[in-house]
Amino acid sequence: MQILELEEIKRRLEKVDIIPAIERGFVAYSSGTANIPPVGELQLDKGEVHIKYGAIEASPYYVIKIASGFYGNPELGLPSSDGCMLAFCQETGQLKSILLDKGHLTDVRTAVAGAIVAKYLAPRRVSRIGIVGTGIQARAQLSYLRSVVDCREVVVWGRSHSRLDRYVSDVTEIDPDFRVETTLDVAELQERCNLIVTTTPATTPLLHGPLRPGTHVTAVGSDTPEKQELDPSILQRADRVVADSVEQCRLRGEISHALRDRRIQVDRIVELGRIISGHADGRTDDDQITVADLTGVAVQDIQIASAVISERALA
Amino acid sequence: MQILELEEIKRRLEKVDIIPAIERGFVAYSSGTANIPPVGELQLDKGEVHIKYGAIEASPYYVIKIASGFYGNPELGLPSSDGCMLAFCQETGQLKSILLDKGHLTDVRTAVAGAIVAKYLAPRRVSRIGIVGTGIQARAQLSYLRSVVDCREVVVWGRSHSRLDRYVSDVTEIDPDFRVETTLDVAELQERCNLIVTTTPATTPLLHGPLRPGTHVTAVGSDTPEKQELDPSILQRADRVVADSVEQCRLRGEISHALRDRRIQVDRIVELGRIISGHADGRTDDDQITVADLTGVAVQDIQIASAVISERALA
Repeated sequence: MQILELEEIKRRLEKVDIIPAIERGFVAYSSGTANIPPVGELQLDKGEVHIKYGAIEASPYYVIKIASGFYGNPELGLPSSDGCMLAFCQETGQLKSILLDKGHLTDVRTAVAGAIVAKYLAPRRVSRIGIVGTGIQARAQLSYLRSVVDCREVVVWGRSHSRLDRYVSDVTEIDPDFRVETTLDVAELQERCNLIVTTTPATTPLLHGPLRPGTHVTAVGSDTPEKQELDPSILQRADRVVADSVEQCRLRGEISHALRDRRIQVDRIVELGRIISGHADGRTDDDQITVADLTGVAVQDIQIASAVISERALA
Repeated sequence: MQILELEEIKRRLEKVDIIPAIERGFVAYSSGTANIPPVGELQLDKGEVHIKYGAIEASPYYVIKIASGFYGNPELGLPSSDGCMLAFCQETGQLKSILLDKGHLTDVRTAVAGAIVAKYLAPRRVSRIGIVGTGIQARAQLSYLRSVVDCREVVVWGRSHSRLDRYVSDVTEIDPDFRVETTLDVAELQERCNLIVTTTPATTPLLHGPLRPGTHVTAVGSDTPEKQELDPSILQRADRVVADSVEQCRLRGEISHALRDRRIQVDRIVELGRIISGHADGRTDDDQITVADLTGVAVQDIQIASAVISERALA
């Protein structure tokens, strides 16, 4: 049994090709070769804990991820979110690795899902990337988009100048080619960008539409029944509505709101893994408006944990 | 964050008073001050994984236990069952300890529950202890009964002479005062013992009754909807039927069979924590027949993990 600390995990991550690994996870999920039980939840006075777990038939490991959010932690000088993953051998149940990643692998697998979505759904010519939010995911999404999108023109929306300034400084450090403009007006971002990623924990819609033809939106922030970043009319008018998990998006995220408001019907939702495997269409036209809703599926955790502990990551 | 290996866990266990700690866990459970979500389950080709987790209001930690059973493991020279526990601070969600106990703490907390049940339900004068089964729990139950029952006369039932011989040798090593007789006939055990503990994974009843007046039976083996060690008539005729968790026993274990067969009604079942706290009667008469069904509740895991990582265990 091995215990991997965050620094070692980061070193190993650099050596693996994580996008195709997570693509295979989504394909397994949508083709029914993944065994993903419902998310376990523990509600506590000062925080909440989610347990995501499961197995992919072709993978040597099953993975259990424990992620927590304790929103009073910053006052104590601690990060609000934390997490770790445990990987066990599927043949014997033996504990193979404990990944003390402090939630970093969740940040990465979420950003990678955004990049995968962009690969299949972004317009051929991205004129400008719009990032809604200035937190960790706002940084991570942009960072992973680099490998699938050539565009380096960015507009970022945030709630304060200080946060926006810090964001610009951080992402130009990630890639000096980024040219980042800031705005406090999300409508401006929506007018100027045709690949938009929303990354906030908003509970009332930020993006109202209508969107420019040819726009793709990936909604990353909303992963509970309460959170909501997109006005349901955006999903209603979209040519393609994609979910990482149809089952999960019925209950959580943007799609759940649009379904409850009867703005879309469930048979319109396409699952990401079916697009990746070629069993469903992604974007078929440069003028289409597409929306993807990512709520996070355990196959992503299984694939990123398996990649980090693979021989390849040691090379 | 600390990682505790099995040997260290065993050393610490010796220093804590685990029976009252687990009693407090059952009381918290029955009084509604424990937050115990449904058990998570992952069914794999070669095994099964259970995730038991939750929090007790008064406890500093929430605990997540991962336990697995891979029944082909012995052919590979590996134990069939394995497990570990993770303890997190309830105030901040920080991972406090990883207990790599390989399932030992589950064995102990299960045996301790048997001792607690005996404390409240065994007849005042135990003439002979009957142990049904020859596995790890058959040893552990007898070991922990020592602290609550004076009797050292034992009859053990097993399926083979070799297993019985090994059992006798092992338990007389635990306590040389034990005088252990063996039998291949469970009816003989049932006639001669008035405190019986069943510890097998049987799926058809082993114990058929009728039992001698004044007998107490603790059924430990059955923790799934399929497993069954007691003929439902035993529960039907019992003066008192006790469950570690009424909710869980409706779905798993001996009580679930008796309910399905309409041999008992759910309002007859008394929860262990209510007996410990004095809100319900245990045994009130030396001639009563009492039955307790233990399916295992996360409060036991929380309490034993918390005890092992407590200051007291370091003393």
